[in-house]
Amino acid sequence: MQSPELDVKARRGILNAQHFHQLQQIVGPSYVFTDEESFQKYGRDETEHLFFYPEVVVKPRTAKEISAILKLCHEDFIPVTPRGAGTGLSGGALPHIGGVLLSMERFNSILSIDERNGQVTTEPGVITEVLQLAVKERGLFYPPDPSSRGSCFIGGNIAENSGGPKAVKYGVVRDYVLNLELVLPTGEIIWTGSNVLKNSTGYNLTQLLVGSEGTLGIVTKIVLKLIPHPSHDLLMLVPFASLEKAGEAVSAIFRAGFTPSGLELLEIDALTIVSSFVDSIAVPVTPGTEAHLIIEVDGNHPESLMAEMEAIAELLTRYDCGEVYFADDAQQKAELWKLRRRVAEAVKIAGYTIEEDTVVPRAELPALIRGVKALGQQFNFTAVCYGHAGDGNLHIRIRQEGTYNSQDDPQMQAALRALFELVYKLGGTISGEHGIGLVQKGFMDIVFNETQFKLMRGIKKLFDPHNILNAGKIFDI
Amino acid sequence: MQSPELDVKARRGILNAQHFHQLQQIVGPSYVFTDEESFQKYGRDETEHLFFYPEVVVKPRTAKEISAILKLCHEDFIPVTPRGAGTGLSGGALPHIGGVLLSMERFNSILSIDERNGQVTTEPGVITEVLQLAVKERGLFYPPDPSSRGSCFIGGNIAENSGGPKAVKYGVVRDYVLNLELVLPTGEIIWTGSNVLKNSTGYNLTQLLVGSEGTLGIVTKIVLKLIPHPSHDLLMLVPFASLEKAGEAVSAIFRAGFTPSGLELLEIDALTIVSSFVDSIAVPVTPGTEAHLIIEVDGNHPESLMAEMEAIAELLTRYDCGEVYFADDAQQKAELWKLRRRVAEAVKIAGYTIEEDTVVPRAELPALIRGVKALGQQFNFTAVCYGHAGDGNLHIRIRQEGTYNSQDDPQMQAALRALFELVYKLGGTISGEHGIGLVQKGFMDIVFNETQFKLMRGIKKLFDPHNILNAGKIFDI
Repeated sequence: MQSPELDVKARRGILNAQHFHQLQQIVGPSYVFTDEESFQKYGRDETEHLFFYPEVVVKPRTAKEISAILKLCHEDFIPVTPRGAGTGLSGGALPHIGGVLLSMERFNSILSIDERNGQVTTEPGVITEVLQLAVKERGLFYPPDPSSRGSCFIGGNIAENSGGPKAVKYGVVRDYVLNLELVLPTGEIIWTGSNVLKNSTGYNLTQLLVGSEGTLGIVTKIVLKLIPHPSHDLLMLVPFASLEKAGEAVSAIFRAGFTPSGLELLEIDALTIVSSFVDSIAVPVTPGTEAHLIIEVDGNHPESLMAEMEAIAELLTRYDCGEVYFADDAQQKAELWKLRRRVAEAVKIAGYTIEEDTVVPRAELPALIRGVKALGQQFNFTAVCYGHAGDGNLHIRIRQEGTYNSQDDPQMQAALRALFELVYKLGGTISGEHGIGLVQKGFMDIVFNETQFKLMRGIKKLFDPHNILNAGKIFDI
Repeated sequence: MQSPELDVKARRGILNAQHFHQLQQIVGPSYVFTDEESFQKYGRDETEHLFFYPEVVVKPRTAKEISAILKLCHEDFIPVTPRGAGTGLSGGALPHIGGVLLSMERFNSILSIDERNGQVTTEPGVITEVLQLAVKERGLFYPPDPSSRGSCFIGGNIAENSGGPKAVKYGVVRDYVLNLELVLPTGEIIWTGSNVLKNSTGYNLTQLLVGSEGTLGIVTKIVLKLIPHPSHDLLMLVPFASLEKAGEAVSAIFRAGFTPSGLELLEIDALTIVSSFVDSIAVPVTPGTEAHLIIEVDGNHPESLMAEMEAIAELLTRYDCGEVYFADDAQQKAELWKLRRRVAEAVKIAGYTIEEDTVVPRAELPALIRGVKALGQQFNFTAVCYGHAGDGNLHIRIRQEGTYNSQDDPQMQAALRALFELVYKLGGTISGEHGIGLVQKGFMDIVFNETQFKLMRGIKKLFDPHNILNAGKIFDI
């Protein structure tokens, strides 16, 4: 006799006409889609060239509707894939086993900005930058913003525990999430915590949810902590003749007592590709430059910031940096950040379709960069490195001529396994801010053993006993 | 027939001679104690006057020894109560159902300070202040420190997700924990995460463990993030004629764009009691003062700090503050912080034995303070309020003449229930940094419903299927 556990694992309900009818009743007929155009749109995200057909696209508007949808799907073992803006880089929003694609796009209201307490309550389908600008108007600051901030949803940021360039000083999404309204896969609606800055009351369900990639529940309301917005910032671009030296300089900045509000690394190829992509000549590139650091400091006292920036620039001369370029005004700063933010898009179009989101203790960056180049030679691929160096979070974009050019390619799988083994050996792990989703799942065994998997699978089963919600993401049950 | 679940719930093994022998074999005979003196010492913590007899006190030295102890106890359903320094205020370390008292005091080494990456790896039995001073010598800063920092263990801080006065700017313990070595109640030893600043790789077991009050596993190694130590700080004490106005001023400081590194509230009774307790005349008390705010700013630029402090002082005049007292030198600062840190001890000795660790959104502090005073009249108790006002975290110490003066008193239970219902109504919760442990457990139903309990109980069962580890703390399974 099969155990009930195996039964759940193997079971997969069939979406039938009755289900379609019920879905239409729940959200209204005009929010249930089965047309090819919808499937084409909702079957992909920003991960490589991957595409999967959902069986139906549903666009609910309330937690109650989601509850009804999940109850239905729970009962009949039907897969549900929640989706934000589809800007993910690990395939988390891809309906890889069909079923219901549940789009959160209609959850697009900022519900309240509480200036007295420095909090915002928002729905998950609000675009991150829209939220940032809304709170900034009140002098408040929500720092975490991925490169895709102009299009990604705040709900997706919570699913992936996103970071962005400010994380080095201000922390990542999980540092700002106070409380979540959550629909469980079994249909119950709960709050995970309380709208307070400190909380030692029961297990931290909020933190368990952040970064769980839509596998434990669907977030329908979000309470975020906000901080006073700093009034000033300064930005500079520093060229280095050696990529490794640039990596070494990163650790040195912190050891000298500085905490920049941004500390980004750009390998020269990334900069030239993106400069050409956005047709910008904003950044002067000296021949012989291997990499740049983008360094930002922020605060409320311009003189202090200037002194700090100069001290950092002085420190960097010990790492063979070239002539420092200061972004003088708002326009120059915007231009430089635009270049940084559009790198991912530019290098993907230039053929670097495979993206890895490695993270190591920051002083190990030079060793990681060296390792990436060596693996490129060994496995015959070209890599371009950039990312949030201050956090040790290096994005590695890979191009390989003459292969299918996907993670699925067996040769590429071997190369990536070698890369992640190196990352692990350096004390790091396989995703810093993009999540595991579908495409990194096969490498989880490098960083987790059976006991750890058992706990994670147990948590998944506790929240989602029929394994309907984003099943097969992060790990298989 | 009883279900297996009920069986576990009711089951409770008997510690017999064979177990004692095995414990002696595991840790060595000189680390197993059954004498009255040990029982007296390890049967209490800083929570009220509570005392419970353990059946045996065991002092292991290695994760492997703990693994062997837990395997033994798991097999025979024997309760195990982990204990740090015994400074807890919610009864988390009390062996309230007997069994094995497992003291972590021999885990007292700082294993490595990694200056390159700004990390420290430590054992849990290191005193928090010892750790702080050790990393400060290298220019590094570990901010979270409870008032008991001179005696509490870092492991206990992790169990309770402690805060302390710096949390308002720098966050609480959970913001610094990168990775934990953990012995599961079933004996397996795992790491919960990775030594990196950003991590989106699988479920966040690290964050689930922080604040779980020793119910999910025993932490044997801790990797903490460190930041550069600020070079300067300024401290001032501001009197207010009205306690409520002091509470209002707290929210105003943040709304004006300031982020102090300390923002403490002291009701006048707390200050006079502690001043007399430590025999200090350091702080001048003007007649008619109801409360003080202690305000600290820190950073690397003294001129900016001075400007900030003056701007804050100017702002506070709008809230009817009295004459500001600036702590001029290191000695005056130390004296003022000493007064603040010893309040809990002083008021407890003065008869305020019941301590509640309420937390609300910070702008609700005045409403909370008003409510506490009203409840005091209604239920005939005297309360003194102090705490981390910048975080909305108010400690309320209660004294009631003519009662047993414990949470167990039925009249007091009714009063506390009314207090926590008010806290919940104000958007807060029942513990900000002390945990639930034994004494707040009865109030958890105010803030959590059955669905939330089901998830938390499920997590407990997943980690600890025989319910041996700190069973009956936080909630009953």
